[in-house]
Amino acid sequence: MAVVRLAAETQNAKLNTQNIESRVLLKIDQCLDRVHFDLREHGVELVGRKAVNRCLSDCAGMACWPTALMISVALPKEGPGSGEAFARELFLACQAAGAVFDCALVGGDTAIWDQRLAITVAAMGEMGEGAEPVLRSGAKAGDTVFVSGALGGSILGRHLTFEPRIRLAQELRKALGDGLHAMMDLSDGLAQDLPRMCAASAVGAKVYAERLPIHPDAEKMSAKDGLPAGLHALGDGEDYELLFVVESQKIPELIRISESGEVRLKAIGEIIDRSGLHLVDGRGGQHSWPQTGWEYES
Amino acid sequence: MAVVRLAAETQNAKLNTQNIESRVLLKIDQCLDRVHFDLREHGVELVGRKAVNRCLSDCAGMACWPTALMISVALPKEGPGSGEAFARELFLACQAAGAVFDCALVGGDTAIWDQRLAITVAAMGEMGEGAEPVLRSGAKAGDTVFVSGALGGSILGRHLTFEPRIRLAQELRKALGDGLHAMMDLSDGLAQDLPRMCAASAVGAKVYAERLPIHPDAEKMSAKDGLPAGLHALGDGEDYELLFVVESQKIPELIRISESGEVRLKAIGEIIDRSGLHLVDGRGGQHSWPQTGWEYES
Repeated sequence: MAVVRLAAETQNAKLNTQNIESRVLLKIDQCLDRVHFDLREHGVELVGRKAVNRCLSDCAGMACWPTALMISVALPKEGPGSGEAFARELFLACQAAGAVFDCALVGGDTAIWDQRLAITVAAMGEMGEGAEPVLRSGAKAGDTVFVSGALGGSILGRHLTFEPRIRLAQELRKALGDGLHAMMDLSDGLAQDLPRMCAASAVGAKVYAERLPIHPDAEKMSAKDGLPAGLHALGDGEDYELLFVVESQKIPELIRISESGEVRLKAIGEIIDRSGLHLVDGRGGQHSWPQTGWEYES
Repeated sequence: MAVVRLAAETQNAKLNTQNIESRVLLKIDQCLDRVHFDLREHGVELVGRKAVNRCLSDCAGMACWPTALMISVALPKEGPGSGEAFARELFLACQAAGAVFDCALVGGDTAIWDQRLAITVAAMGEMGEGAEPVLRSGAKAGDTVFVSGALGGSILGRHLTFEPRIRLAQELRKALGDGLHAMMDLSDGLAQDLPRMCAASAVGAKVYAERLPIHPDAEKMSAKDGLPAGLHALGDGEDYELLFVVESQKIPELIRISESGEVRLKAIGEIIDRSGLHLVDGRGGQHSWPQTGWEYES
């Protein structure tokens, strides 16, 4: 966990060079066999797609449009993921995933080793003229907390097939302007990611359990393992949905976007000025924030 | 080998976005335990330094100044390279390597798995106002082929401690202007890298064996294994020196740079218009190009 924290510390870093007119962002993300996917079960197309889309989802989290991708691949010498044909298909799958957003694959590196497949994707993105990236650090007391889509149970397949919310993030930024106070993508689950946003913003939050958008896959997981579906929605992670915080007077605008668009937006809680997070039950009872969430350890 | 070719195909790709005033380049490179270094022998500082400098050497090869780095690390769960302290030291080592060129570490990603350490470094670089990257594809018949430094035997230590030729590449570009026809960094050895440059430029080359700058480490390797030192200079790889091709009338300029600078520049041959590469011996006899070179396979 400590090591994961180290990554989070640098994750919000953004580049601000004086020689470049428009604001450029850089992102890097890795996808490892038997951690983020399993080559014994998942085909090369899904694997390449996930590797790219994880990185693009990070771009979406800052309302940044990705413009260029690089892929670095450590290929196993033998077994699943070995061989030239696999490498070629992987590059094509990555290229196709970028092409969905007109984002070109501009470079790469391959090596062969006697370990499992490791894919690293780096993305460069642009904010567009004069626009600033949306950070995690702008949430203010009184703001409303939203999520896109529905959460939980992504392990049943959505962790491979999700669509990064690039277009939605652009729409939010354009429609809400400065009223979009903070945003990030949900990769480790709301239970872990909302505390990160709150810490970055030096605020607390209340989330209403009954308002959580629970994905049918979370219900399926619940039927399998007996854990509440809500806990799956909070903790499973790999939702790759947007978590964002807006000025409350922008809510009508959000209702319009939600009703006219393909992705449902749901107000799940509010930002409070005290630090600490609370889960509120149907009767208004306040509970401590659940310590749950996916950890990337094989 | 086929897979390595795939990387070379994309390696020269450069980014040309219309929204950005200055030309931006992106590079990605990986460094794997027991392929590019060995954690059983090499400390974290050398490993981080090599991971960054390999990528920066790629920037040097195009006369590009690196401005931002990202590091992605797959950390082993146990054994060499595991634990938070190692991760932190690795980030510091990477940061220090970038700082030599005022190149900031702006982001990163970490994950833990049950495989060996894999480090991926992505760099963004800038060409400066109006400048174009120096590619592999501009060599012309009659040009002179140069290398910086001395070659061979880097496995004895220089493969970890080399200095990427960022500053030299800038100096060459400024001093030679359009007369600097083609350039790349020598990562796989002259025997493999010169044919790549010739293929990209659709030319051939003659190299004079007696003019090859042979590093004392190549002599040491030769004393150990009985192979000629010249073969080590041609094939060992990981020299991270510059291979470059210039208009022959620029040679006096190069002599000046070589004599006033820290790095010796050596004319080793010439570009010919016929395709094919030849090694010329001390008596003028022409030999076929040696099929030798380091292959990154563990």
